[in-house]
Amino acid sequence: MTKMLILGGGGMVGQKLAQRIAADAPFADPQITLFDRAFPPQSAAGKQITGDVSDPAMAATLAAARPDVIFHLAAIVSGQAEAEFALGWDVNMMAMWHLLNALKAEHDASGGSYRPRLVFTSSIAVFGGPFPDQIGDEFLSAPLTSYGAQKAACELMLSDFSRKGFVDGLSLRLPTVCVRPGKANAAASSFFSGIIREPLNGIEAILPVADTVRHWHVSPRAATKFLTQAALLDTDQLEGRRALNLPGISCTVEEQIGALRRAAGQKAVDLIKHIPDETIMRMVAGWPRDFAPERAIALGFQAESRFDEIIAVYMEEELGGA
Amino acid sequence: MTKMLILGGGGMVGQKLAQRIAADAPFADPQITLFDRAFPPQSAAGKQITGDVSDPAMAATLAAARPDVIFHLAAIVSGQAEAEFALGWDVNMMAMWHLLNALKAEHDASGGSYRPRLVFTSSIAVFGGPFPDQIGDEFLSAPLTSYGAQKAACELMLSDFSRKGFVDGLSLRLPTVCVRPGKANAAASSFFSGIIREPLNGIEAILPVADTVRHWHVSPRAATKFLTQAALLDTDQLEGRRALNLPGISCTVEEQIGALRRAAGQKAVDLIKHIPDETIMRMVAGWPRDFAPERAIALGFQAESRFDEIIAVYMEEELGGA
Repeated sequence: MTKMLILGGGGMVGQKLAQRIAADAPFADPQITLFDRAFPPQSAAGKQITGDVSDPAMAATLAAARPDVIFHLAAIVSGQAEAEFALGWDVNMMAMWHLLNALKAEHDASGGSYRPRLVFTSSIAVFGGPFPDQIGDEFLSAPLTSYGAQKAACELMLSDFSRKGFVDGLSLRLPTVCVRPGKANAAASSFFSGIIREPLNGIEAILPVADTVRHWHVSPRAATKFLTQAALLDTDQLEGRRALNLPGISCTVEEQIGALRRAAGQKAVDLIKHIPDETIMRMVAGWPRDFAPERAIALGFQAESRFDEIIAVYMEEELGGA
Repeated sequence: MTKMLILGGGGMVGQKLAQRIAADAPFADPQITLFDRAFPPQSAAGKQITGDVSDPAMAATLAAARPDVIFHLAAIVSGQAEAEFALGWDVNMMAMWHLLNALKAEHDASGGSYRPRLVFTSSIAVFGGPFPDQIGDEFLSAPLTSYGAQKAACELMLSDFSRKGFVDGLSLRLPTVCVRPGKANAAASSFFSGIIREPLNGIEAILPVADTVRHWHVSPRAATKFLTQAALLDTDQLEGRRALNLPGISCTVEEQIGALRRAAGQKAVDLIKHIPDETIMRMVAGWPRDFAPERAIALGFQAESRFDEIIAVYMEEELGGA
C-alpha cells in the first residue's frame, strides 16, 4: 500500500494527478487522500478532506496519517498573491513551513524511520528578468512577484529539511500549464489558456498582451507525468540541488494562435480580442520565456515538442477529440 | 535626526558598526539603538535594548519606534544553526518574517509614508557547490547548510516586501569577516580568523582543514563600511535585484599563513596546529571560494586587495598597531 496525499487535490492539476495515479498505477496499491478547500462535484476518486492548508493544526493532522508520498500543489495563484499580500505569504509560504515542521515531528516520533517523499509544485515565477535568451540550470532565482518569492522560499525550506533527512523532497519549477480546462482563474497567466480554450469552445477570448510575448508552456498531461515521475525519482541523482527546471515549449502568443488556426481554423482565431491590460503586461514582462532544462532532461523528464501537441491534448482530454 | 536600529548590536560587527556611525558621521544626527541578547561590558554608545529577536512582540516594539535605518545582523551562526535546527530557522528566518510584518504594520498605519531602509547581512553561505571558478552575479543560490538556506529565504522576503514598497531593503552577501577579534565562535568558519588571531596573540591555533582550502574574506572594517554604504545607497540602482555579492579577497589557507609569516614571522606560524575536523571539512567543502562581484563594484563597494591588508587592519584595530 502507498499512502498518497495530494494537497490542492481539488484543483485542476490535483484532480488530473489523482486520475493518473489510478489509471497508470505507477504506485503499488495507492490509497489517495485529496485535501483542498473544496472539491468539484465529479471529483476524482479518493478520500476527501476539506480545510485550510495554512492551518498548523491541519498540517499536524495530515502529517499524523504518515503519507508515503505527498504532492503539495496548494497555492494562491499569482494574480491573487499580488493583490492579497498577506494571504499569499500565508498560504504559499507559511503552509509549507507548517507542513515541514509537522512532518519533521512525525519523523522524530518515528525514531527517524518516517521520511516521506514530498513533491512540491514550484514555478518558473521564481525567475525574474533580465534573462539570458535561455535560462540555464544555474541561473539565479530573483523573483519579481510575491508568488515567485513565496515559491522560491518554499524550495529553500524543502531542500534544507530534505538535506537533514526529515523528508525527501523535490521542487518542480513547472512551466505554465496550458491549456487549462474550465474557467479562467486569477493567475496572471490565465489568458495563455484562455486564448486557446475559449475559441475552441466557440466563445470570445481576451488577449491582454502583445502577440510577440514569448512564454514557456506544458500540457496538464505532461505536468502530471512530471509529478508522478518526481515521486518515483532516485533523489540521490539530484546531488543536493532539489529544485528542477522542467522541460516545456517556448513559443510566442502569435505561434500559439498559429497552432489554434491549424487546429480549428480562422473562425476560431477571430474570436480572440486584443484588449491590453497594463497590470498583466507588467507582470508578464518579468516572466521567463525560454529554458535549457538540461538536468531535468537528463533525469528523463519530457514535455511536448510543439504547441500543436498541447492543443491536441486539450481536445483529446476535454473535448472528446473534437 | 536619523533613528538607527542595529539588531545584533551587541555582536562584533554590530559594535564596530555603531562605532563607525559615531566616528564617520555618515548619517545626520544619528540616534543609535542597539538590540541584542546581551552586550559587552565596554559597549559602543547607544541606547541598549535586550531581548529575543525571534519574539514577534519584540519585533512590534522595535518597529513601533519607527527607525529610519535598520541593520539586521542578528543571527545564529552556521555551526550552531546546523546543530540546533529549529533554533536556527526560528532566529535566522522567522525573526526576519516577524520584523518585516511589524514594519509593514507601521507602514500601513502611517498611511504609507513610513518606509525604513533595512540592510540585512546575508552571507556567501547562500551558495552551494559545485561552483564555477568565480561566482558571478547571476549564479544560483543553492545553499548546503541550514544557515545558508535561512539567509537565502530572508533575502526573498526582504526583496518582496521592498518591491511592494513596505520597506526599502537590501541584502549584503558578506564574505567571511576576518580577522574576527575576541574569542572563537560556533561558526564553522571561525578558524579562518583563529589561525591568524591566536598566533598574533602568542597562543596556539587549530587548523581543521587542509591549507589548500580557498575562501573569500573581508576585514571587519570593510564589512562595516559596506553596511553604511548600503544604508545610503540609491536602491533604484539595484533594478529589483536587492541581494548583492560583495567584494572580498580570495585566498587559500596557505596564502593566509604566508601573510601571517610576513606580518609576524615563522614563530607565529609555528603556533598553528593542523588537526583535521571531518564536520568542518565537509561544511567548508561546500562553500564558495571566489567571486566576480561586478554589480557591487560598479555600485562603489570596495574591499581590501591583499590578505596582508586584512592582517594589518586587525593589528591596527585590536593590537594598537603592534
